[in-house]
Amino acid sequence: MSNKGCCVSLAQCFFDYYTAKILVIRSRKVGTLNRFTQALVIAYVIGYVCVWKKGYQDTDTILSSVTTKVKGIALTNTTELGERIWDVADYIIPPQVVRRYDEEEEDGSFFVLTNMIITPNQTQSKCAEIPISTSRCNTHRDCRRGFNDARGNGVQTGRCVPFSDKEKTCEVLAWCPIERTGEPPDPPLLADAENFTVLIKNSIRYPKFNFNKRNILPDINSTYLSECVFSRETDPNCPIFRLKDIAEEAQEDFQTMAVHGGVMGVQIRWDCDLDMPESWCVPRYTFRRLDNKDPDNNVAPGYNFRFAKYYKDSDGKEVRTLIKGYGIRFDVMVFGEAGKFNIVPTLLNIGAGLALLGLVTVICDWIVLTFMKRKQHYIGQKYTYVDDYGLLADEEET
Amino acid sequence: MSNKGCCVSLAQCFFDYYTAKILVIRSRKVGTLNRFTQALVIAYVIGYVCVWKKGYQDTDTILSSVTTKVKGIALTNTTELGERIWDVADYIIPPQVVRRYDEEEEDGSFFVLTNMIITPNQTQSKCAEIPISTSRCNTHRDCRRGFNDARGNGVQTGRCVPFSDKEKTCEVLAWCPIERTGEPPDPPLLADAENFTVLIKNSIRYPKFNFNKRNILPDINSTYLSECVFSRETDPNCPIFRLKDIAEEAQEDFQTMAVHGGVMGVQIRWDCDLDMPESWCVPRYTFRRLDNKDPDNNVAPGYNFRFAKYYKDSDGKEVRTLIKGYGIRFDVMVFGEAGKFNIVPTLLNIGAGLALLGLVTVICDWIVLTFMKRKQHYIGQKYTYVDDYGLLADEEET
Amino acid sequence: MSNKGCCVSLAQCFFDYYTAKILVIRSRKVGTLNRFTQALVIAYVIGYVCVWKKGYQDTDTILSSVTTKVKGIALTNTTELGERIWDVADYIIPPQVVRRYDEEEEDGSFFVLTNMIITPNQTQSKCAEIPISTSRCNTHRDCRRGFNDARGNGVQTGRCVPFSDKEKTCEVLAWCPIERTGEPPDPPLLADAENFTVLIKNSIRYPKFNFNKRNILPDINSTYLSECVFSRETDPNCPIFRLKDIAEEAQEDFQTMAVHGGVMGVQIRWDCDLDMPESWCVPRYTFRRLDNKDPDNNVAPGYNFRFAKYYKDSDGKEVRTLIKGYGIRFDVMVFGEAGKFNIVPTLLNIGAGLALLGLVTVICDWIVLTFMKRKQHYIGQKYTYVDDYGLLADEEET
Repeated sequence: MSNKGCCVSLAQCFFDYYTAKILVIRSRKVGTLNRFTQALVIAYVIGYVCVWKKGYQDTDTILSSVTTKVKGIALTNTTELGERIWDVADYIIPPQVVRRYDEEEEDGSFFVLTNMIITPNQTQSKCAEIPISTSRCNTHRDCRRGFNDARGNGVQTGRCVPFSDKEKTCEVLAWCPIERTGEPPDPPLLADAENFTVLIKNSIRYPKFNFNKRNILPDINSTYLSECVFSRETDPNCPIFRLKDIAEEAQEDFQTMAVHGGVMGVQIRWDCDLDMPESWCVPRYTFRRLDNKDPDNNVAPGYNFRFAKYYKDSDGKEVRTLIKGYGIRFDVMVFGEAGKFNIVPTLLNIGAGLALLGLVTVICDWIVLTFMKRKQHYIGQKYTYVDDYGLLADEEET
Repeated sequence: MSNKGCCVSLAQCFFDYYTAKILVIRSRKVGTLNRFTQALVIAYVIGYVCVWKKGYQDTDTILSSVTTKVKGIALTNTTELGERIWDVADYIIPPQVVRRYDEEEEDGSFFVLTNMIITPNQTQSKCAEIPISTSRCNTHRDCRRGFNDARGNGVQTGRCVPFSDKEKTCEVLAWCPIERTGEPPDPPLLADAENFTVLIKNSIRYPKFNFNKRNILPDINSTYLSECVFSRETDPNCPIFRLKDIAEEAQEDFQTMAVHGGVMGVQIRWDCDLDMPESWCVPRYTFRRLDNKDPDNNVAPGYNFRFAKYYKDSDGKEVRTLIKGYGIRFDVMVFGEAGKFNIVPTLLNIGAGLALLGLVTVICDWIVLTFMKRKQHYIGQKYTYVDDYGLLADEEET
Repeated sequence: MSNKGCCVSLAQCFFDYYTAKILVIRSRKVGTLNRFTQALVIAYVIGYVCVWKKGYQDTDTILSSVTTKVKGIALTNTTELGERIWDVADYIIPPQVVRRYDEEEEDGSFFVLTNMIITPNQTQSKCAEIPISTSRCNTHRDCRRGFNDARGNGVQTGRCVPFSDKEKTCEVLAWCPIERTGEPPDPPLLADAENFTVLIKNSIRYPKFNFNKRNILPDINSTYLSECVFSRETDPNCPIFRLKDIAEEAQEDFQTMAVHGGVMGVQIRWDCDLDMPESWCVPRYTFRRLDNKDPDNNVAPGYNFRFAKYYKDSDGKEVRTLIKGYGIRFDVMVFGEAGKFNIVPTLLNIGAGLALLGLVTVICDWIVLTFMKRKQHYIGQKYTYVDDYGLLADEEET
């Protein structure tokens, strides 16, 4: 035993090399089983981890910036307004195209007004509330001065006045005349909006690889860009989209959607393998309706909001035009992940693969020592017993 | 030695099965130690990794979409405006409810105006600057034509004019009259805002599991929805929130907060175990104040911004009403993670557990070979020495 | 063989302790190789994983909230408007500073108007379209009633009218007069914007460690804050930034950028080691231009959008002032990661390190058993063969 010597000269002991003693079983059956299991693991590691999941690559998430610019003119002809032209400054609300620049993903969105209920010339005055449970009345006593129902339009004055020939309701201090309730016009007022186009400019960046690209690809010239319209078949790289086409790609009917409004997602996906030529890294556009259009179990479907334009009349009194605007919000979402060869994840995955190979021995051992005919022979060779059940006085040899 | 033979017939060598030779120590002490340590590791793996962390599940992060709709009427009575009603189009700024649809999490937000300083009838003209260090003057010579202080309200004309009976300040070209400085009204102008309600519609999606759900749960009908108000005890699933309740849940007093404004976070958490029934996956609402309300070391606490309404007077001259609006911004944040059984992470965690079990042997070996009484006996059995310190001429047996 | 006995008394077998039999090679060469490889792995684990990557720390991502407040006055002198003062309510569009509170990162942004093309007194009426391919005409027959070109400004009435002395174009129903085409003013109208300052208030939170901090550091008092301006050398902790300085730090010329507009990123990075004193955790500010300013292959460079102010004239007719506004959008982005000692990741990394040490033996074994002079001797000691190729009738000893 050299152990004592080792403890004497520590420096020498330091260079001892420890390696496991191995039993080599030269059996076709066992060997086949072993190699087959190993092959499975190696196929998994190479096939799934390396090829499918690109485990040899370092990945980076996208940084992206979006600008959108809508173009188009709509003509409406209503009794309130007569013939009227709507241009970008009229139907894009709020005017500024909201843009975000995000670590995780980019999110630009714009809203196109497609339909509306207009209540012009509202002033702060007193008029009959619309008929709801708390406003219907017969005499002044049914109305409570100062009462304010969240579903109503103003504060009650305490008087009961005729709302129509048939009905009486409590008078309220409110923006009068009160907006008519009911469904928005169908067909939608700005039905022409389906022909509006939107230019989506999208720059992306993979900071880890210092890789920048834009969705206006290098081979696109400005002549093409001034005329093209996106089409999955003929112009898949044109960044100008007709609103109707966006709806159609999402299996929606634009005119139906325009009545009550809704939310459309414009998804731009940049999945780039930067070990490949740069020109392979191109955006893929997909379109999806984001809001719930199911009429059942859906409170106030669609997408609308109220806004007002404020004026002063000749007496200096504030007058407003209230607009309940219905429209389609387009959310531009940029996703993507890029990968490039890197030694660190490669080593990590090789290491993990080797660890899995270690499991193969555990499984084979179990099979060999449990099911093989000659298992007793193998056990005898593999195991050496040191029996110390002294206290139990086992009668087996030490 | 069959090594030569192996090199001769490679195919045969290919099927050699290598397995470690094992020493079995049959000792109660060592065995107990070993099993105890193993039990610890297995308890950790099963208890912490599998049960607590749900290591057998694949997880997905939430995709979410939020729409909000505020309802309510406020009545104010000021000297500038007289009795005035404020409805949604007046107090929600900007009109459009900002919504986002996000990979990581959703973020819808809306702003409710609760207090303001109104400066009506401003025109581009000349008037005395408010008294600040650069504007106080005695004679025209103290003022510099064209001077423009970032803290001031306009560009100096070079004249010194009376600001009040006591003070003289430099005249500026500005929107006159200049906004009065000082604290906003207390109690806040739109104190009624505490009774406003907001409907928050939130659809979520776990794309990996193709799972969609909304915070308007399937068992909620529209009658209930038209009347309910969220209450943690009685109506925990109603998606309509009273602003005052939101503040109270966040341990804030709405009226105090309304004076200077602030930012409230409405957090919706969807943590779903999709191995369980779908009806168990419900949103949990929490509320938290997001801005710093600590008055010390806090520059301009609260939340306010200036905006203006522009008019033209009868001469065609531009006139504006400047409003310094104080209010509460509600940020709706959706968080969540869903898990569902999947074989890949299960295998990974089992593998990691087995690796930890390998460590047990290392620890036990160390204890057995260092502290046990019969350690010399075990060492002799475990180790075989091949001594090659030939050059050092060690005198120990090979 | 005690195997039979084991099977008889299972309980006893339960306490068997299995440990690998080890061959100790006492050779300076092999030992040196082994220790050297081990040292490499340990250096990697300690140096890279523990020290560089702080593997002993648990990490958390930032939660952040941003408010911005711009100050400054600009004076313009144009033929359309005469001398005019622009204050915050005029040049910040939309008025409300957009703020976001985000799990991943925060994103506040504000837009400062720097240049514009103003078209005052537009009304819904009929006038000559600007000359484009579809609008140039000689006779009424060249124009199509109801035709609506996306690049045009209105709907054609079918008449051909003089646009200028030289050219005739189709008449359109539109907001007339039509906005002039062409480049925006250079120098920009609001050249004074370079002296505007912005106060950026940023609170962050690392929820896992319950750590909160603000970019207004505790040692900053309000006197300093009312006067300071950020400067990388002299005032690196002042949260008030002059717009010109932001542009300069990003290697941009403010005046050039102001003409066509653009997007600037203000990045706040909070990387905190919470094992260190809290005062070491301070924000770092960097500035970067986010939009593409390359004039080649760039459609509509810069950043602009159209918006309108609506008035009613004395007859109650709607009149608007159309503004094509150019400006700079400032995107405030907050990044950061905090780390603090935690036992779980520490154990995980130690485990991973030990697994790597296991690989060392594999490599050393390969070298020892392939390249060493005495390899046959080592092989003989390490391996025990059990030859079962009975069917092949190998003539080697079992």
